[in-house]
Amino acid sequence: MRILLIGASGTVGQAVAGALAPHHELIRAGRQSGDVRVDLTDMASIERMYAEVGELDAVVTAAGSVHFGELVNTTPTQFLSGLQDKLMGQVNAVIAGIPRLRDGGSFTLTSGITADEPIRLGTNATTVNAAIEGFVRSAATELPRGLRINAVSATLLTEALEAYGPYFPGFPAVPGARVGQVYRRCVEGVGTGRVYKIWE
Amino acid sequence: MRILLIGASGTVGQAVAGALAPHHELIRAGRQSGDVRVDLTDMASIERMYAEVGELDAVVTAAGSVHFGELVNTTPTQFLSGLQDKLMGQVNAVIAGIPRLRDGGSFTLTSGITADEPIRLGTNATTVNAAIEGFVRSAATELPRGLRINAVSATLLTEALEAYGPYFPGFPAVPGARVGQVYRRCVEGVGTGRVYKIWE
Repeated sequence: MRILLIGASGTVGQAVAGALAPHHELIRAGRQSGDVRVDLTDMASIERMYAEVGELDAVVTAAGSVHFGELVNTTPTQFLSGLQDKLMGQVNAVIAGIPRLRDGGSFTLTSGITADEPIRLGTNATTVNAAIEGFVRSAATELPRGLRINAVSATLLTEALEAYGPYFPGFPAVPGARVGQVYRRCVEGVGTGRVYKIWE
Repeated sequence: MRILLIGASGTVGQAVAGALAPHHELIRAGRQSGDVRVDLTDMASIERMYAEVGELDAVVTAAGSVHFGELVNTTPTQFLSGLQDKLMGQVNAVIAGIPRLRDGGSFTLTSGITADEPIRLGTNATTVNAAIEGFVRSAATELPRGLRINAVSATLLTEALEAYGPYFPGFPAVPGARVGQVYRRCVEGVGTGRVYKIWE
């Protein structure tokens, strides 16, 4: 398959690349690195990316940041930034990508364990990740030509323990290699409208 | 109790008012009507509203619109409009309301059945309502002074059948009086971080 991986340089992106690259033609996209550059908050940038890469069998998005902070001190601008970046970025990639995917192709989005398990300072993360899962649930009902869409919600990756471990006390980390295989299942499998959860 | 009901003139708002007004001091807020006017997309307007009404035991929000349309033809601006209006409007009301609520007070937000049950043209609705429920799940973990927060997710109300019935084929409507009682349970009960679902 010809697969576009957006957010290829991140911890999750690298895990996805590790699982997909041996079996497929993988095109890596990112804000600051990759085969093609893209800013998912800018629809014109997304359209340029799709025009540049041509026809695809799958799009995987593992990009986007959220705001961390105490709710009572969070400004509307800060809260909105997570919605704009991680949620709207992936939504934009799907809307613009529908006509670019071959029949039977798929989108695989990235949410995260905080959708179900809130963490300290993480209300924006829970909100954004829950929204992504809602989006996938509904978008699956209206995609044309046998296109599929799913989300992967992983807990902390072993590879990200040093950076994010303190935010997830008592959460067992999972190896990126295991997470990458779940994305592979989304791309090569038959499920749609699903949220694949990876945690213990 | 002294209760602020934002969105008092809508179908759900009227049902909530019917359940609460006989038992409490109810202050009605709305964009174009009510005891006090407010634009929930404008934090300054929200702050003015809270300053005007004074101390409260509960805030109920039943306000906000979402975008309906085919996903493939939805622009980022249209998709964002639902996030700005129904999601951020209620989020803003909570963030600004925390210091205005007396100890042990509560917020009750409004999501909707489309969070769980997608409908035609309703991907923005599903996304927004899922986000509201995520917000409630996490905000409950960090509210101070015994404050509580919940969401009510109702199916179509009997009173809205004429306007919205065609969007909900095969969905049994429920009387507003029944929905109003669930809001009353949120306000007078002990639950927090919950989503109370009203449908068959």
